[in-house]
Amino acid sequence: MSTINDVAEKAGVSVTTVSRVLNNRGYISEKTREKVYRTMEELNYQPNEIARSLLRKQSNIIGLIIPDISHPFFGEFANAAEYYAYQNGCKLLLCNSQLDPAKEREYIEMMKRHRVDGIIMGSHTLDVEVYRNLPYPVVTLDRQIEGIPFVASDNERGGELAAQLLIDKGCRKLAHICGNLQLDLLANRRTSGFERVASENGATFMTLQTNMDVFDQQEYERIISGLLTEHPDIDGVFATSDIIAAFVIKWCRKLGKQVPGQVRIVGYDDVRMASWATPGITTVKQPIREMGRLAVELIRKQMDEEDFSMENLLPVTLVERETT
Amino acid sequence: MSTINDVAEKAGVSVTTVSRVLNNRGYISEKTREKVYRTMEELNYQPNEIARSLLRKQSNIIGLIIPDISHPFFGEFANAAEYYAYQNGCKLLLCNSQLDPAKEREYIEMMKRHRVDGIIMGSHTLDVEVYRNLPYPVVTLDRQIEGIPFVASDNERGGELAAQLLIDKGCRKLAHICGNLQLDLLANRRTSGFERVASENGATFMTLQTNMDVFDQQEYERIISGLLTEHPDIDGVFATSDIIAAFVIKWCRKLGKQVPGQVRIVGYDDVRMASWATPGITTVKQPIREMGRLAVELIRKQMDEEDFSMENLLPVTLVERETT
Repeated sequence: MSTINDVAEKAGVSVTTVSRVLNNRGYISEKTREKVYRTMEELNYQPNEIARSLLRKQSNIIGLIIPDISHPFFGEFANAAEYYAYQNGCKLLLCNSQLDPAKEREYIEMMKRHRVDGIIMGSHTLDVEVYRNLPYPVVTLDRQIEGIPFVASDNERGGELAAQLLIDKGCRKLAHICGNLQLDLLANRRTSGFERVASENGATFMTLQTNMDVFDQQEYERIISGLLTEHPDIDGVFATSDIIAAFVIKWCRKLGKQVPGQVRIVGYDDVRMASWATPGITTVKQPIREMGRLAVELIRKQMDEEDFSMENLLPVTLVERETT
Repeated sequence: MSTINDVAEKAGVSVTTVSRVLNNRGYISEKTREKVYRTMEELNYQPNEIARSLLRKQSNIIGLIIPDISHPFFGEFANAAEYYAYQNGCKLLLCNSQLDPAKEREYIEMMKRHRVDGIIMGSHTLDVEVYRNLPYPVVTLDRQIEGIPFVASDNERGGELAAQLLIDKGCRKLAHICGNLQLDLLANRRTSGFERVASENGATFMTLQTNMDVFDQQEYERIISGLLTEHPDIDGVFATSDIIAAFVIKWCRKLGKQVPGQVRIVGYDDVRMASWATPGITTVKQPIREMGRLAVELIRKQMDEEDFSMENLLPVTLVERETT
């Protein structure tokens, strides 16, 4: 059976170079990479990553626990996290919790057994204690837990921007559709930012809660149709996701209300769907790519015992399209 | 350090039961599962999955290689595959190839080193030879390679259904926006099904190619705006994805064309976005959940040396919404 030394000798490169190609670390020219791969194939060299993990005590696997990868926000976040994990020589293990505490718990146990290098935690069904006692680095998305770094967009500012835009456009009776305010999530600061700016400007507003983590079309439709029929004078809606904003458009159309003529709508996230929709959805843009990059960096920095910041609040921007 | 025997003894269950909880296999009551977890925590028992993998020669990891997890079709497919992998005691390693052959190649090499149990391959940038010589089971999505089972929707039938619906609704000048016909993909049979039914019914039609695997908004917009301005008499469009259909809606609106009054549109996939859009997109529904389930089952059957079918063509259905 061939060894790494055989590969290096036959390819005419150093063992370090072969190791770098294997670990996808450091700069390697495309030509060298190709040569190493070809030689590995010629010699039928099979590095055993599992055995190497045991020696290195490092698996090069990052676990990503999210509610649902098919939700556009989490899909785009996972896409970015996977990209930057790969740049760091790591793979991403995908775990959809579906907000099922038993499944989330089992995944956390599985990851202990697999000796993952760290977990990016975007699901929030378990008590904080579970996350605080894990034997590997953790980064949370949109949730603040003492002793664990988090990545979030500046939700408070996002809520302010949405309220201010609707008021500047002349809306006087606002509605805000938010997530579950009982959960201790940073995303709920969108609500406080929105309500403060609305109050300061003397606008009437109402706030409706829904569960935004997992897509529940029926619940969205029930809340939105109820809102628009019971309060026909609503002229501005701030939805806590672009998907919910899309359903507000749908119901405005069903009820014969012009968007943005009679009802103006602002979403949150700026997932790509916001620009595909007709009319294009005005939204508060979270820097999703940067959030994915930073989450991976925070795992790596904890592993390497480098300095890192516990609170990572990334700036949001307003993207104006056709719903305002 | 505690062993699996200590856990079994203290929890008052058999070693087999502890093992089943660890591997998430077989029926275990919620009460027993909780008791085993609690005992593991009390004893600080840390099963080492990596060492166990070496012994079992099985990693319980399935690799999923797709172009882009943030594309709605692949996000929904990954969601289903992850669900069924979990039911089979497996985890899903996520690999976005971004249609970069070098990245796809590196991922395939990485998976060899990690001794994955199998690969679900939804990306198609490499030559077939690469896939045929892998040391683990492979299942392809929408691509037929000798010796490797595939999962696909009945693309031919989907194209027929789309053409027939547009013709039945009175369209006489049809356009079809498809993927890259140079690639040997089963998805391209949508085009042959569509063109045959259009011909048989004496309808005029034109076919435009784009790259549907990776989202390229600018290319879509260029093709669609060109199509609708250069051929203002087009009255029916069959787009090979719901996203492309959403862009056709967008451009119809920009050019002042009524949907479905002047232009009728049929998409493909039935991703959830098709029902969020306004107007709701009429589409050919792929059974995405079933495709994910079957892909995992085909990996497992190959591992267990059970019989399996090489060609797995799943039925499609027409979902009529507001664009026709």
